[in-house]
Amino acid sequence: MIDVCLLGTGGMMPLPYRWLTSLALRYNGRTILLDCGEGTQIALKKAGWSPNPIDVILFTHYHGDHIAGLPGMLLSMGNADRTEPVLLAGPRGLEKVVSSLRVIAPELPFELRYKELTENEESFPLPDAPELRITARKVNHRVTCYCYSFELGRQGRFDAQRAKELSIPLPFWSRLQKGETIEDGGRVYTPDMVLGPAREGLKVAYATDSRPCGNIVKAAEGADLFICEGMYGDDEKLPKAREKKHMTFREAAEIGKAAQPARMWLTHFSPSETRPEQFLSGAQQIFPPVSCGKDGRSLTLNFKDE
Amino acid sequence: MIDVCLLGTGGMMPLPYRWLTSLALRYNGRTILLDCGEGTQIALKKAGWSPNPIDVILFTHYHGDHIAGLPGMLLSMGNADRTEPVLLAGPRGLEKVVSSLRVIAPELPFELRYKELTENEESFPLPDAPELRITARKVNHRVTCYCYSFELGRQGRFDAQRAKELSIPLPFWSRLQKGETIEDGGRVYTPDMVLGPAREGLKVAYATDSRPCGNIVKAAEGADLFICEGMYGDDEKLPKAREKKHMTFREAAEIGKAAQPARMWLTHFSPSETRPEQFLSGAQQIFPPVSCGKDGRSLTLNFKDE
Repeated sequence: MIDVCLLGTGGMMPLPYRWLTSLALRYNGRTILLDCGEGTQIALKKAGWSPNPIDVILFTHYHGDHIAGLPGMLLSMGNADRTEPVLLAGPRGLEKVVSSLRVIAPELPFELRYKELTENEESFPLPDAPELRITARKVNHRVTCYCYSFELGRQGRFDAQRAKELSIPLPFWSRLQKGETIEDGGRVYTPDMVLGPAREGLKVAYATDSRPCGNIVKAAEGADLFICEGMYGDDEKLPKAREKKHMTFREAAEIGKAAQPARMWLTHFSPSETRPEQFLSGAQQIFPPVSCGKDGRSLTLNFKDE
Repeated sequence: MIDVCLLGTGGMMPLPYRWLTSLALRYNGRTILLDCGEGTQIALKKAGWSPNPIDVILFTHYHGDHIAGLPGMLLSMGNADRTEPVLLAGPRGLEKVVSSLRVIAPELPFELRYKELTENEESFPLPDAPELRITARKVNHRVTCYCYSFELGRQGRFDAQRAKELSIPLPFWSRLQKGETIEDGGRVYTPDMVLGPAREGLKVAYATDSRPCGNIVKAAEGADLFICEGMYGDDEKLPKAREKKHMTFREAAEIGKAAQPARMWLTHFSPSETRPEQFLSGAQQIFPPVSCGKDGRSLTLNFKDE
C-alpha cells in the first residue's frame, strides 16, 4: 500500500490559496518527500502528516520554489524529535546548496546523508526497504532537473501446498514469505521454493519543471498514478512554456497518452492560472484520464487483489 | 500617517492557522518589513500588500523563524519588477547569512545594501525620508537580537501671518514648509522663519525574542503602538520562558506598564498556545491596554489633529 498526498499545486511562488508543488508518499510507516518549497511544512501539517517520519527528501532541482522550505522543514523535523538519519537526493550540487541553506539551521538532532545524481538514469532503494525502488531520470529544464518514479515490487503468492510437499517446517513459512533464506539441520530453504512468480506491484511517477521528453514517458509508463507539471493551461502560452522550459496542459497530456498511466494529475500551475480546470477539456481530448491536482489531493494505492 | 499590519503572530514554526511573526509598516507609499520567516510573503499577499515597495527589511535576529522566508520574498520582489535598491539591516553577520541563503536566489534585478548593527543603540533614517527615524536597540535573547522603534517626526504648523509679515514671496511658502532653504535676490529664507515648534509625531515599537529588559522599555516609551512578544500565556511556563529567553504575557505587560504606550499587541505565540486570549486577563490586570495580536491585524496611525 502506498499513500500519496499532493501537498501543493503551485509553481514559481506560494500563494494564499495555493501551496507550492510538493508530493508526500508514505509506505510502511515511512515518508518520502518530493521537493520542499516555501510553506511545504505548513501544507504537510495541514494534510495531517507528521514531519518526523520523513526518511527521504528528493529534489527535482534547486530553484527556490522547490527547496526554499528545506531549512524550516529540517528544523521542524528536529522539533518533532527525529533522530534517525535522513537521505537527501537530487542533482549534483546538493550538499553545497543544502549546507548553504543550513546557515539558519546549523544544529539538527539527526544526520543528513547525501546522494548526488549524475547519470541520465539512476536507481536506488528506499533505505532499509529494498522492495521500494526509486528511479531518477534527467529531464529538460533550464537547469539540471530530474523526474522520479517509485516502484513497489510484490513477490509471488505463497504456495502452502508446495511448502507441505517439501516438508518445510511451519515456523519457517512466514520467514520465507518475507524473503529470508533459512538453514536448518543441514537443509537450506529458499523463498523461491515456496513463492510463485512476482505479481504486479505499484508505481507512482512525479515529473515537474521540464519540457516534454522521453525520460518522463519512461518514468510514467504503466504507472498507477502519474503526477506531471502543467504550468500553462492556455495553448496560447506555448511560446512561454518553450521559453521557460515548462509545459502546457496539452503537452503534458501527450506524455500521458504515450505512457498510459492509470491516473494522471496535473500540478505546478503558473500563478497566472487561477482556474486551471477551465483548460482541462483540451488535455482530456488527448488523454481522458488526466485531471487537475488540488492542494491536499490524496490517494491510497493498493495491490490489485488485496 | 503610518499603516501597520501584523502579518503573523506565531513563534518557532509556521502553522496552518498562524503565520510566523512579522510586521509590515507603510509610510508615504514605502514599506518596511520586520522579520521574514517562512511564509511571510504569503501572509503579505493575503493582507493585500505588494512585495514590490519593500524598501527596507529589518531583522531582529537570524533564527529560522525570523529569516527563512527571505529568499522567497526577494525572488517575489524581483518577479514584481522591483529594480530600486533594498536596505537590509540586522545584527552583525547579516551579509554572511543573507549571502548564504541566496544560494537559491542568486540573481535579483535590484541591489541589496547592508547595515550591520553593532552598538547597543543605533539610529538611522528611512532612506530618502529622514523624517522617519528607525532606532535599533539590543535586547536579551540566546543570540544577539535587536528591537526596533520608528519615529515619524512632525514639523511645526506653518505661520502664514508671519510669512506675510516677513514679505516672503508666496511661491516659496510650500517649499519652506517642506523644509527647504531658499536664496532669492540676496535674501535667504529658512523654514524656521515660518514654522512653529515641532508637533507630536507618531511612534511604533516592535520587540520580539527577548527576556524583559530596559531597552525594550525605552523603545516602547510613549509609543502609539507597541508590538511585543508573549511566547507563553500561562504563568506556569515562566521557567521555560527564562530558559528559552522569551517572555510570559505578564512579563510583557510589565514592560507596557513601564513604557505606557497607547496600544499594545502581543505576538510570537508558542505553537503550544492555541488560544492565547484565555491568558489575556492576567496581563490586562497589569497593563489594561494590552491585547492579543492576530494574523493580519491592521491599524492606521494618524497625526493627532489631522
